[in-house]
Amino acid sequence: MVEINKANIGFSSGRLLQLFRDGQPHTKAELADQTGLARSTISLRLDPLIALGLISPATSATSTGGRPSARLLLNESAFVVAGVDFGATHAVAAIADLSGKILVSIDTKRQISDGPEVCLRWMIAELRHLLGGLGLAEDRLLAIGIGVPGPVEHSSGKPANPPIMPGWDAFDIPERVNQELKARVLVDNDVNVMALGERHATYPDVNHLIFLKAATGIGSGIISDGHLQRGSQGTAGDIGHVRVSRGDNVACHCGNYGCLEAVAGAPAIIKNVNAAGLPVRNISDLIDAAKRGKVEAIQAVRQAGRDVGEVLSTCVSLINPEIIVIGGSLASAGEHLIAGVREVVYGRSMPLASENLSIVQSKAGKEVGIIGANVMAIDYVLDANTIDQLVSQ
Amino acid sequence: MVEINKANIGFSSGRLLQLFRDGQPHTKAELADQTGLARSTISLRLDPLIALGLISPATSATSTGGRPSARLLLNESAFVVAGVDFGATHAVAAIADLSGKILVSIDTKRQISDGPEVCLRWMIAELRHLLGGLGLAEDRLLAIGIGVPGPVEHSSGKPANPPIMPGWDAFDIPERVNQELKARVLVDNDVNVMALGERHATYPDVNHLIFLKAATGIGSGIISDGHLQRGSQGTAGDIGHVRVSRGDNVACHCGNYGCLEAVAGAPAIIKNVNAAGLPVRNISDLIDAAKRGKVEAIQAVRQAGRDVGEVLSTCVSLINPEIIVIGGSLASAGEHLIAGVREVVYGRSMPLASENLSIVQSKAGKEVGIIGANVMAIDYVLDANTIDQLVSQ
Repeated sequence: MVEINKANIGFSSGRLLQLFRDGQPHTKAELADQTGLARSTISLRLDPLIALGLISPATSATSTGGRPSARLLLNESAFVVAGVDFGATHAVAAIADLSGKILVSIDTKRQISDGPEVCLRWMIAELRHLLGGLGLAEDRLLAIGIGVPGPVEHSSGKPANPPIMPGWDAFDIPERVNQELKARVLVDNDVNVMALGERHATYPDVNHLIFLKAATGIGSGIISDGHLQRGSQGTAGDIGHVRVSRGDNVACHCGNYGCLEAVAGAPAIIKNVNAAGLPVRNISDLIDAAKRGKVEAIQAVRQAGRDVGEVLSTCVSLINPEIIVIGGSLASAGEHLIAGVREVVYGRSMPLASENLSIVQSKAGKEVGIIGANVMAIDYVLDANTIDQLVSQ
Repeated sequence: MVEINKANIGFSSGRLLQLFRDGQPHTKAELADQTGLARSTISLRLDPLIALGLISPATSATSTGGRPSARLLLNESAFVVAGVDFGATHAVAAIADLSGKILVSIDTKRQISDGPEVCLRWMIAELRHLLGGLGLAEDRLLAIGIGVPGPVEHSSGKPANPPIMPGWDAFDIPERVNQELKARVLVDNDVNVMALGERHATYPDVNHLIFLKAATGIGSGIISDGHLQRGSQGTAGDIGHVRVSRGDNVACHCGNYGCLEAVAGAPAIIKNVNAAGLPVRNISDLIDAAKRGKVEAIQAVRQAGRDVGEVLSTCVSLINPEIIVIGGSLASAGEHLIAGVREVVYGRSMPLASENLSIVQSKAGKEVGIIGANVMAIDYVLDANTIDQLVSQ
């Protein structure tokens, strides 16, 4: 039998708010029609939402008559959320309204290896600074979405054996942040957050999407039936340690051999390009070389695309996505990476699974992580249960 | 933003019924408490459910006082569903109550290759016969769940290029059945249906489960977050055509090379055992030989398990299941198949993904398909929207 979430069953203010998430104005009469409830009940449920400022009359510009408008709208500036995207060597923090529009952001160099105390202290100070600049009190901030470059147990917000985040293993991020800020804290790995961001920014109507990040590491975020899939331990999408055929003798930092990341991650590509006689020191050298048409770089990036494609073709069989989005710094090496991916995926997949499948470059670009971190926070804030808690306070 | 199913928002009779799906008795007072609605509204929503017979007073045996019980229960015998499991060469049809308890069933030899007209005419006649035997009118049958041995577009109920089902491609199964029976018809491939059946029968509390069927063909059904994953075209879980490392020169009937099914399906195993000098003609010969300890059979089955494990280890990285259930006729060859699967999956997977992962043999056994077909029908019948339609008729 299916599970039943009892908290969702009552016709609460939180459920009523869901009707406004289409961004359209609604009248009480219309809401009564839609829900089958009495108008008096509608008023009873709307009043606390209006008191909180979450619902307000449509402004005169959008109203049709001279009297105060009976048309009500979700007020997307009633509260704000924060999104924070920690990379290995940089961090972005932003404040957004409830539509996901970023009001202010800061992008800075930061070492995740400085550990949680240093990084989170910076984050808390920065968020306070950004809120202050917007003239907003701290209690306007309802949730903070945080992406980090490593595996996370999403339910607890604790990183789980993250290889490039010394000091963060099992660190209780929400607990530390809540010592100073009262907002709800949601944490996930960077690639899951990117999948949320790309869907929100570019493919809001696509329900089956895989976001692949190719850079130093390789990972993916999987959205099926419109929901981010985290799996039972939160490791779903961990594509970087799948074995690939070209990887027989390649040792991976995870302790196994032949992992996709060890074969097709940026360090491996750079090594191959150097071995082919073209000196490149880092990812941006590599991308420059590919863009300048250096054949050693192009060949190596395309081969990495084929390796990624080998694993993605299995993803296509298992998950049957509508769209695969390729992001991460390696994706900016022109079409070479994606050409390799397409070559293998379309060659390997069953016709029914690939006939409507698109494989595209990330459109949300560098912003994708910060957008996704905010979306994760907004999805929490506008959830019926969250709103009901807010109403009952 | 998340999608909103507006039909689910009103506090309808259908939503109220969901509270009863825990199988426990509820009083109106308790329901009013739980939902925050007035008792008069509760009565208004319950009345049509009581009139339909879906909700009825707990019987005196379960009641505590002398007066008519105020405790109400879901009446699981108010309606029935049918489940039909078509295999390549057999078919099972059953009638079940709304708890999934099978009231009567028939298991018979049947060729799916006889085509849809012959098979569905048999099915319709058989279901009428079974209903008659139970003394039930046709309007008591609300839904029919059908599993078939090939890919299906679940939303339309049409098979999509099924390789072993001549005449069935794009055949509108629901439309044909509804020419004679008014029940709602739901169709899916046999392995998805098995995944539903195994979860219902053995692992009702597990939300992340992969069911693998290994027989002539190899396929899987994926349950994530408690929901069967079908993907954008309905081909999710189509594991049989993933390339495996041992398959370089093995041609598959799909037109590609090296597919898991071509390397580790029963025909390939049988060929290998014969080549090793042990004559076996079919799956049951093969299983007998493995059970009698014939090393040629054991080695070949175990190697097939390793091939399956190679693909499943990728599934573990991508989907992060709690449990992998191995079913299908090859699974009955003792522990040899599963031993090969475990050897590779535990060797290949990341510690966090495999530390709580169980790999087990199907416990629901041969019944798993027919249980799942009935569960698919019951999930439709007890859905809030279905109940609301029923109430409004």
